[in-house]
Amino acid sequence: MSTITAAYYRGNKTFAVEEVNAQPPAAGEVQVRVAYCGICGTDLHAYHGNMDARIGFERILGHEMSGRIAAVGEGVEGWSEGDAVVVRPLDPGAPNPATEAGYAHVSHNMNFIGLDSDGAFQQLWNVPAFTLHALPEGLRLDHAALIEPAAVACHDVRLSGLAPGEDVVVIGGGPIGVLVAMVARDAGGKVVISEVNEHRLKIAGQLGFDTINPVKEDLPALINARTGNKGADVVFEVSGTQPGVDAMTAVAATRARIVMVAIHAKKPSVDMFQFFWRELKLIGARLYEPEDYDKAITLVASGAIDADTMITDVSPLSEIQAAFERLDNSPTALKSLIKVGEVA
Amino acid sequence: MSTITAAYYRGNKTFAVEEVNAQPPAAGEVQVRVAYCGICGTDLHAYHGNMDARIGFERILGHEMSGRIAAVGEGVEGWSEGDAVVVRPLDPGAPNPATEAGYAHVSHNMNFIGLDSDGAFQQLWNVPAFTLHALPEGLRLDHAALIEPAAVACHDVRLSGLAPGEDVVVIGGGPIGVLVAMVARDAGGKVVISEVNEHRLKIAGQLGFDTINPVKEDLPALINARTGNKGADVVFEVSGTQPGVDAMTAVAATRARIVMVAIHAKKPSVDMFQFFWRELKLIGARLYEPEDYDKAITLVASGAIDADTMITDVSPLSEIQAAFERLDNSPTALKSLIKVGEVA
Repeated sequence: MSTITAAYYRGNKTFAVEEVNAQPPAAGEVQVRVAYCGICGTDLHAYHGNMDARIGFERILGHEMSGRIAAVGEGVEGWSEGDAVVVRPLDPGAPNPATEAGYAHVSHNMNFIGLDSDGAFQQLWNVPAFTLHALPEGLRLDHAALIEPAAVACHDVRLSGLAPGEDVVVIGGGPIGVLVAMVARDAGGKVVISEVNEHRLKIAGQLGFDTINPVKEDLPALINARTGNKGADVVFEVSGTQPGVDAMTAVAATRARIVMVAIHAKKPSVDMFQFFWRELKLIGARLYEPEDYDKAITLVASGAIDADTMITDVSPLSEIQAAFERLDNSPTALKSLIKVGEVA
Repeated sequence: MSTITAAYYRGNKTFAVEEVNAQPPAAGEVQVRVAYCGICGTDLHAYHGNMDARIGFERILGHEMSGRIAAVGEGVEGWSEGDAVVVRPLDPGAPNPATEAGYAHVSHNMNFIGLDSDGAFQQLWNVPAFTLHALPEGLRLDHAALIEPAAVACHDVRLSGLAPGEDVVVIGGGPIGVLVAMVARDAGGKVVISEVNEHRLKIAGQLGFDTINPVKEDLPALINARTGNKGADVVFEVSGTQPGVDAMTAVAATRARIVMVAIHAKKPSVDMFQFFWRELKLIGARLYEPEDYDKAITLVASGAIDADTMITDVSPLSEIQAAFERLDNSPTALKSLIKVGEVA
């Protein structure tokens, strides 16, 4: 039995980095040697103590990962030691109306691995074999740590039904917003990013996007001017704010599709009249399905998702505490990775 | 030139019934001898003075009509005197992004005939020939006055994508609500109507629907009990109220489609988290397209839409003032018709 390093969330913005004994994979599981794991907005939310009732104080977080298979459990076929992989961290749990209807990724009983059970901020991680996706050889493992959030973006764009040449507005230029923008651009959309943070606007510009700061400029007027008074065919609300919800209907074309990507804990006021008047459609989107992972792998491997610009810093697992503190206070960071272990 | 009776909206809840000279149909128009015309919620809205800026005080209202062709204007082909018809009262106006995209019924420049130009509360009515739909012989003209609101319901149900066997909740049991319920039932939906007015609940029961009064009973709990904790696959929000908007997300199954039928002049608070969490879809629906009229004609003719139960009173055009006053104060009326003229 080998000793590994693991980072435990202990509550109150605190991690404990400990040496523990690795457990062998159970039947149906695979043991993954974790290379990199990104810090998700949800991890920051947990770090702030907002999910203590759900996750407790013995939890290893982390789900935006990459790695190689270290060992294969009993009954697992099709995977071998050394395979480069990412994990789709969803265990749908017992059957229920949602899984029976084919929507396992939003199952009522779902276990989100890395929150409801231990995640990838540990050097050897046992996961069900059905969660694995193979990586193409040559894909850098630091880049591959973007596949999980990129799969969110692929799901959002897929559910929007975006067609080539359509006008797209992404409201909110954080990590998910710029990933959505890159996936939408790859699908042929003409994309504008609306964002209030000047640092994020600058990164969006570096990624090649037209940007608008809606605090300084009239977003609906500019979108109308760009589109011959049509408006945006597809809108992604990624800001999670009331002004974002106001903007999503204001920029939308007749019969536009608005994808609700953000998590609105409060119940925003919505211009429901516009939904009626212009026959708008609102599409809720959460997480991803297997095909979204396949697409995300393709886009990170092809460079359509510009991983080098998105990844703003990399810290070793021993410095996870400092990495969370820095990201929490940084106006400039976009995606912070933890280098969990040395993986060839 | 013949003299006809016409009812003019003069503002402040007042109609003037006058004898006027009928004008011959212009090129491209058809003159319709109007038999019946229903009073729409929008007509009541206008009667209350809420649309004075749009319609003025020289306007003949009315668009839920039936009749027979009295004369055919120059250049009109395919129609003959005596043909039984209904009018789809939409003139899309000059081309614009919405008409160019194929959504003429929600065109930016649309003239709604009966509001933006004169309607059917007159005995001879000239309309563009492209607005006509032929009625099958044998369809009673009083029943046919329900086709326009029934086409709204057909549009709503079509946009929902309702499949046979799906669980449906209709929130609001007024005229449009019960029409939506009847169309959804014809499409194979298992329909429950939620309504707070006891008189309307009684009519819904007479129409054969299961009903719930959400003020007296726990609507989400009852829907969960009926559906094995799945929830409703399709929800129609027809109430135009904040409790209706609260209920639409509370009763929805994972990946449910919610159709926004009501006109929400205020901006309601919406549980946007549920759209994300359960991947709900909200579909705005307004008016109708030609195929919805065709479907409505079929359903009124077949009896799937129970016109006799829906039509609660019929008044002559000379008594339009009393008819509006009675409908405005009636807790029991569902659909009031005006008999505009004698049509064989």
